[in-house]
Parts: sequence; structure tokens; C-alpha cells
Amino acid sequence: MPSVRRVSHEFLQRQGLTTIFGNPGSNELPFLAELPDGIRYVLGLHEGAVVGMADGYAQATGHPVLVNLHAAAGSGNAMGALTNAVASRTPLVVVAGQQVRPAVGPEANLTNVDAPALMKPLVGWAAEPACAQDVPRALAQAVFEARLQRRPTYLSVPYDDWAADAGDNALAVLDRQVQRAGEPGAKQARRLVEQVTAARRPALVLGGDIDTDGHFGAAVRLAEALGCPVWAAPSLFRLPFPNRHPLFRGVLPAGIEPVRRAVEGHDVVLVLGAPVFRYHEYLPGRYLPEGTRLVQVTEDASAAARAPMGEALVADPGAVIELLLGALGAPTVPVGDYRPVPPPQPGDGGRLHPEEVFAALRDELPEDTAYVVESTSTNAAWWRQMDLRRPGSYYFPAAGGLGFGLPGAVGVALGRPDRPVVAVTGDGSANYGITALWTAARHRLPVTVVLLRNGTYGALRWFGGLLGVPDAPGLDIPGLDFTRIAEGYGVTAAHARDPEELRALLARRPDGPRLIQVDTALTAPN
Amino acid sequence: MPSVRRVSHEFLQRQGLTTIFGNPGSNELPFLAELPDGIRYVLGLHEGAVVGMADGYAQATGHPVLVNLHAAAGSGNAMGALTNAVASRTPLVVVAGQQVRPAVGPEANLTNVDAPALMKPLVGWAAEPACAQDVPRALAQAVFEARLQRRPTYLSVPYDDWAADAGDNALAVLDRQVQRAGEPGAKQARRLVEQVTAARRPALVLGGDIDTDGHFGAAVRLAEALGCPVWAAPSLFRLPFPNRHPLFRGVLPAGIEPVRRAVEGHDVVLVLGAPVFRYHEYLPGRYLPEGTRLVQVTEDASAAARAPMGEALVADPGAVIELLLGALGAPTVPVGDYRPVPPPQPGDGGRLHPEEVFAALRDELPEDTAYVVESTSTNAAWWRQMDLRRPGSYYFPAAGGLGFGLPGAVGVALGRPDRPVVAVTGDGSANYGITALWTAARHRLPVTVVLLRNGTYGALRWFGGLLGVPDAPGLDIPGLDFTRIAEGYGVTAAHARDPEELRALLARRPDGPRLIQVDTALTAPN
Repeated sequence: MPSVRRVSHEFLQRQGLTTIFGNPGSNELPFLAELPDGIRYVLGLHEGAVVGMADGYAQATGHPVLVNLHAAAGSGNAMGALTNAVASRTPLVVVAGQQVRPAVGPEANLTNVDAPALMKPLVGWAAEPACAQDVPRALAQAVFEARLQRRPTYLSVPYDDWAADAGDNALAVLDRQVQRAGEPGAKQARRLVEQVTAARRPALVLGGDIDTDGHFGAAVRLAEALGCPVWAAPSLFRLPFPNRHPLFRGVLPAGIEPVRRAVEGHDVVLVLGAPVFRYHEYLPGRYLPEGTRLVQVTEDASAAARAPMGEALVADPGAVIELLLGALGAPTVPVGDYRPVPPPQPGDGGRLHPEEVFAALRDELPEDTAYVVESTSTNAAWWRQMDLRRPGSYYFPAAGGLGFGLPGAVGVALGRPDRPVVAVTGDGSANYGITALWTAARHRLPVTVVLLRNGTYGALRWFGGLLGVPDAPGLDIPGLDFTRIAEGYGVTAAHARDPEELRALLARRPDGPRLIQVDTALTAPN
Repeated sequence: MPSVRRVSHEFLQRQGLTTIFGNPGSNELPFLAELPDGIRYVLGLHEGAVVGMADGYAQATGHPVLVNLHAAAGSGNAMGALTNAVASRTPLVVVAGQQVRPAVGPEANLTNVDAPALMKPLVGWAAEPACAQDVPRALAQAVFEARLQRRPTYLSVPYDDWAADAGDNALAVLDRQVQRAGEPGAKQARRLVEQVTAARRPALVLGGDIDTDGHFGAAVRLAEALGCPVWAAPSLFRLPFPNRHPLFRGVLPAGIEPVRRAVEGHDVVLVLGAPVFRYHEYLPGRYLPEGTRLVQVTEDASAAARAPMGEALVADPGAVIELLLGALGAPTVPVGDYRPVPPPQPGDGGRLHPEEVFAALRDELPEDTAYVVESTSTNAAWWRQMDLRRPGSYYFPAAGGLGFGLPGAVGVALGRPDRPVVAVTGDGSANYGITALWTAARHRLPVTVVLLRNGTYGALRWFGGLLGVPDAPGLDIPGLDFTRIAEGYGVTAAHARDPEELRALLARRPDGPRLIQVDTALTAPN
């Protein structure tokens, strides 16, 4: 009989989980022994970076990804990064090493005490199998639960289990397949089509799932068939629609009252692939204008259940788009031209305006560049300058948890070597995932990091103004030189002093990772 | 009536929690508004570093410390570091910002969904008060629970609560005091004294609590009165005894069989201030030799209950030491001289032997230096070379969770400005808490970081050999230059190429933080 380890490795290969992102401790070594040639291991120097890389990779490839972490300390280091994966509905399968079975109860050093309980508040499913022979089946469950729930899962495995005999029934797991159907039934379909076709002034709100699941192009066809305005859902983490498309109205502001104002005059708001809604600023008001109906289509059952208004259908948004496209026919009115880009606002002497930075990216980099953005105070400038027309062009930390930017870019670059990848990060956010630079260097990934340095937590400064808290401590972060830090991690670095220098640097195609630091003026995110 | 914020700040001041370690997000700003002059805020650039700094500060000062973290993402980032604080029994009071109350249920962005559940597996107590008026009382509970349990606690506060009226009964909290008695009763005392005085060949095993709680000197007196050998408990995080004292036998090896061998021939093993035992390597065997009795005295009720052998008294080890000293009288036999230091082993050409590094520290730095050590593969070399005779000389990540070293050193330096502070870290471990360098630079703390660079996860390489796993991926970490990284964070840095250069650098007293990188040969931890 093969070992638990052998069957588990084989199962992972069959399911296509052949890239492992990890940071090992002693408990993990037996799982990593005898890895087949078809499985590659990507090392991160901090577990937060490991999960950020895996999240980016899984989002970019559309497949579940295996993450290997150390017991409680290592898993704990990853929990902030996991909040983003929860919000972006990324199927990460986290396998963590546990002490040997006899050592768990007495809490030997490096025991993960009550390991499933530690992670359960965050992940969709967590377990520690009761015996070694159950490990391959539990691993399969971890993979399938992650796929079905679209949420990270967690499996804690005592390290003495891996060498154990897998038992008589172990091979049954190798042929398992689990899928979920998500198409609307006939009655549900009729109702949806009626609601949308009967609408006098419909509006579309698209969530990140539309891009993640490959419906970017279909969403454009649907909007054009409806001839209706399109918003991206608040607290956006993937761009579901070309941002300069004539029907695109931008990202809905993340407050109750501004959303109501935005959809004023629309009788039906169709929300596809998003929670209703991920507000941020508390700006109270009525959820919707009088006479506006909201219809939400999402695969996320919890998002459907917890929404404070509207009706919801838990279904595959892609299937619903196809259904509506079939019912609507070709667009009758030409949609017009893509919106032109305004000239960037000028900087203030020594510092560039973020719009100058983004204009340089737009002009100098290929159109199919994938951007992983974690600069929060420059959000408004970003959308004013960018022109993103392709799927998979934009990634942002989905829960607002900082530390996704640099690792996420590394993961996207590993998962999509066909796309140029750029990380756009601030001098605040870069620190939460800084060690990802090393992994970029080790794999010689052609990732460009554009680091906007304004010396402060800019988005917090703005929010403090909103809340009437001008005097909070801990908002300024002077004295950081990311060119030095990058070089220390093996990444080429430069400081660009003006837009021309920045453009000249960007115009060179990189053959490995590089960091470009620019000093920027403080701007407001909205 | 004062606001919830005002009463809470006042309570913190009265309880002496006047240094806040934090990393703010938007939810935290209202708590940080109008901070009184007597409260200082120490910013960390990553929550793991924040908790590591607070842990070091709390251990060095012996007092509970307030930590301010952002909701789920920020708290999640800190959970790895919290595992160390759990193991070192450090009373950290973590206050995290929550979204405004109406936004929590619908899971607005930056909501900490079911916040207490997220942290409860790790902390001793976690809550989110049901209304604003309960916040000051709940904060007091968080402080008292942390003190009583000697474990981190967690309080999630919706950010609209801080400006609310504190209510009629709010001021009652300001005068609260909660203490716990821990002296043995008369019968318990008699039994203990009888057990120890009747022992023919007693042995002492001392845990980290002995140093944390200020019983270092008393423990020496007890050992000398008993004239018995002394071990430090396995998986040591504080040094409870002078390591070259003639009665000191070193740190007990972290395996069942080696511990049995070590205490062979002793009829009574008295364990003070430690779990029984924090083994690491699984080396099975009998727990104790035939005829050996184990008596554990600890304030940690859970450690007493879960121990697999021996009898336990949940009591203050300091009180028990005083009790025994009173019963034993003065030592009858001179204890002899402190053990001499062997000459350091030589390096291999380009690389120093870690013993050469530690000999340089021992010779060039003041005797009262506090060392925060996170170099795991050099453990044996460390104890061979060092000569630590004072309390508070040694700190190590208590759960083995990497990322404590640099932040812990910053915290110790902030808490004990009277002691020189040195962080001894490896090129692997430094990455888990690297941003603490920035806080050291901002506060111009005279911390010396000695970075031993061997290009690999050395302790894992050794453990892989022990487990028969020679082929695990992800163990090598070449291409890191910490002099560059340190400079990027504002810390002066140098690379020492030989022992003389290292000694010359160390001989200069620093007026701010500095990092000294040395290339070292790979050694085994045991």
C-alpha cells in the first residue's frame, strides 16, 4: 500500500494543484519529502506573503491553489492575508503541519492547539483528521470545499501521518470529482428575463466575480444589449468592465446615501457577482430610491442571505448573463466611443502627482498589463488616468487588508507569464508584504513595482478628516527608502525624480523584477 | 457625562497602560483621537511587529501593555505573533476597531465578522460589547483578564462607540482593582517543604516565568541552599538562572527520552514556573526514571492540568521559593566557581563560526546587555559562549514563532532604556519582523542587531536530517543583503568580514540603531 504522502501528492497532481506556495517549519518537512517532479514549490519568506502570492496566483489562473504553512505561529501569520482571500472568494487550500499525534494533547512546542478552531472563524472548512488513514480523504474534502464554497479551507495534519500506510480504501479518492450546478431553473429564468426586459431604465452593478470567473467580455455584451449604465460594486477588487467604456459610470461609492443617489431614476438595478453592498464610510440614508428594485445574482449564498435589501438568486452570474443575452438580441443603439483620458494633474515641484505616475503607466506599458494595486490614497487619480480594456487587468486587496499588493503581483506573474505584471503600491502598504520581493528575485519574474512614496498613511489622513479626528498619532511614515530595501531582497531599483525619468524607466522591458520609487503628492482616495 | 473614549483613556492611565503599540486603520482613528499627553503611541509598520514589540515591552517591564490593531485583516496579521505572547504568558490587551454598529451585520468593508470568535482560540478572553456604554467596563475586564490569566485578551469596539456618552455608571470603573492570591496554604506548604527537604538528590527545573516575574536571584539562592543541579525547562524563552553558574546544567533537551536521561538518579524534580514539558523533537521513552517524583509549581492552571505526569500546585513560584528558602537555611557547601568559557570554534575561511560571533558579543558588550535571540540553528554555540549573570538578559520567541526577534528587541529597548539591547537574529528569522527596524530608527533606540547570515533555514536543515527528509524544497534563502534592507528602514548597517572587524564594530557604543551582518557557517542547534 502506498503512504499517505504518496496518495496525497498524487491526488494534488490529478486535481491540478501542482504549485505549492509555502513557508516551512519542522512540522511540514515530512509532507514536503519526495515531492513529485510535477509539483513545484514556491517559497515565501513570511506567511502573509505566501498567502498573498497564492491568492494572486489562484485569481489569475482561476484554479484552487495549495498553501503549506507552519502550525499555529505560521498559520497565524497568514490570517490577515486570508481575510482578503475570503473577500475575493479565492479557493486556497491551506495544509498545515501539526506536531506528532502523541505530542498534541500535552501541547509540545510547535503544537497547533485545537488547530481547526484557530482557523474556523475565517475559513470555510477546517479539520484535523482523527487518524492518518483519513488524511487523503480529508485533503480531497479541503479541495472540494474550497471549490464549492469559494473560500479558503484548512487542514492540519500531524506530521507522523505522512509516512503512514494509506490503507485499503485510500486510492478511491484519486478519482473523485465534485461539481455544483448553478443555472437558473425555467421559472427562475422567466422571472429574471421579465424583470430585466420590462425595466424602463435598468442599471447594472458588477462585482469582482465577473472578472474572476471570465465574464468580462460577456458583461460588456450584456450592457451594450441593454444600453444601460454600468457601475462596479463598491470596494472593488477586480475590474469587471472596461473602465473607459461609454456605458461605464465607475465604481459605486462605498456609502449608503451615495449609492442611493447614484442609482436614482433607475427602476431595476441588476447586481451580478457582488455582495449588496460592501460599504465602507458610514453615510446613512435610504438604501435605494423609492421605486427602485434591486435584483442580486451571486453564487455566494451568504452574501445573498445577509444583504439588507432586494431579492436574490443564488446562481452562476455567467449563466444568467448568457440567459439575458439570449433574450435581449443585438443592441439597437451604438454605444459610442470610449471616454478620452484627461491630462494628468501636475505635481508640486519635487513630488509627482499620482495622475502623472498613472498616465506614464498607461502610455508606456503594454495594453495587456495586469495591475495589482495597493495604493489606497490614489484611488481617484488611478481611475481618472487608466484605460483598462482587458479581463484580468486589475487586482486589489479584497478585504482592504494591506499586504496583498507585492505578493499578489508575484502570484499573478507566476500564474500568467503571458501578461506583463505591475504592482502599484504605497510606502505604507508595501511594508505588509515586503518580503515578496525576494520571491520575485529568486524566480526572476519580470514584475515592475511602482512605489508611490508620500510619507504618510494617506487614506487614513483623509478618513480622519471625514471622522473629525485630525489628531491621531501614528499616521506619518518618513524615512523609508524602498530602493535600498528592494536591493537588499535582490531586486533592481531606481528612484524616478520626474515624469520623464519615470517614463524612460518604464519604457524599458524588464527581464527580472524591478522597483521604481517616486515621491508623490498626497491625494484623497475619493 | 464624559465620553466612552475619555473614560477609557483615563482608565488606561490609572492602570499604567500608557504606552500603546499600534498600527492604525480607519476603524481605529476615533479611539486614538484626543489621546492624553501621558499616553504615548508607538507605531509599527506591520501588526506582527507591533505585537512583537508589545510582547518585548511587557516582558521587560512586567506590566500589561495595550495593543491597538485594525479589525480582521490587522488582527489577523498579528495572530502569529500572539502565539508567542500566549506561550510567554504575556498580558497583552488588544483593542481593535470595528465598523460602526449598523454596518457590522451586513458586513460592510473592514467589518470584523464575529470578531471575538476570530481571536478566541488564541486569546484568554475576547468580546465585543453589546452597547457603547459597556465599553469602559469591558476594557477593564480585558485588562484584568490579561493580568489574571497572563494571556493576551481582545476587545473589539465599533468605532461609533468612542464618542458616545459613557453613561451614569461609567466612572465606577476607574477605581477598580483586581488581584489574585497565590501563596500556598499551611497544609500545602508543609507538604512541599517535606517533599523537598526529604529528597536525597533533588533537582530543580526552572521555567521562563522565574525570570519574567523577578525570581532570578531567589532561584540562585534556592539552588545554592539545596546544593542541587539546575536545568532550564525545555523550549526556553527567558533565562531563569546564570548560565555559567556551577550548579547550572543547561537547558533540558526538548525530548522525552533525553529528559529522562538527564534527571536519572534524582528522587525529586521540582519544576518551578514552567509547563511539564514543552518537548519539541519526538523522542519517545518513559517520562521519568523509575523512582523519580516530579513536583510542578506554576501559576498556569492549564499547564498544571494538562501535564502528563507528576503532581502540581497552582501557586506563585516566587512565594514557594521564599517558603523553601525559609525552611532550608544557609548553604552548607560552597558552590564553587562559575564555569569558564571555552575558546570559540574557528570559522571556515570566509564565514565566521557562530561561536566567534557570540564570543565577540560576550567580550565587547556590557555585562548588563539584554539579548533578544532568534537565531535557532546557533543555539548550541550560543550557550557554549555566553556568560549571562543578570535577570532579564535573554528573550526568545516563546512559541517558536519567528518574527519576535527584531520587534521584541525594540520593545525591550523601549521598556528598559537602562539596559543595552542586542537582537541576535538569523537571515531566515529576520524577515518575519523586519519592519521593526523602522520603529527602532524613528525612536533612535540604541539597539544593535547582529544578523547571522548562513543562507539557509539552518534549524530546518538539521530537523530534516533528524526526520530522514533530506530533500524538502524551500530551505535555502540566498541573495539577501540585510545591510541594504536596514538602510532602507533608516538603520545604520555594516558587514563584518572577520572577528576583529566584528569586535571593533561592537566596541563602539551606538547612539541609535545599527545592524551588523556577518556571514556564518551552518551549525546544528543541538
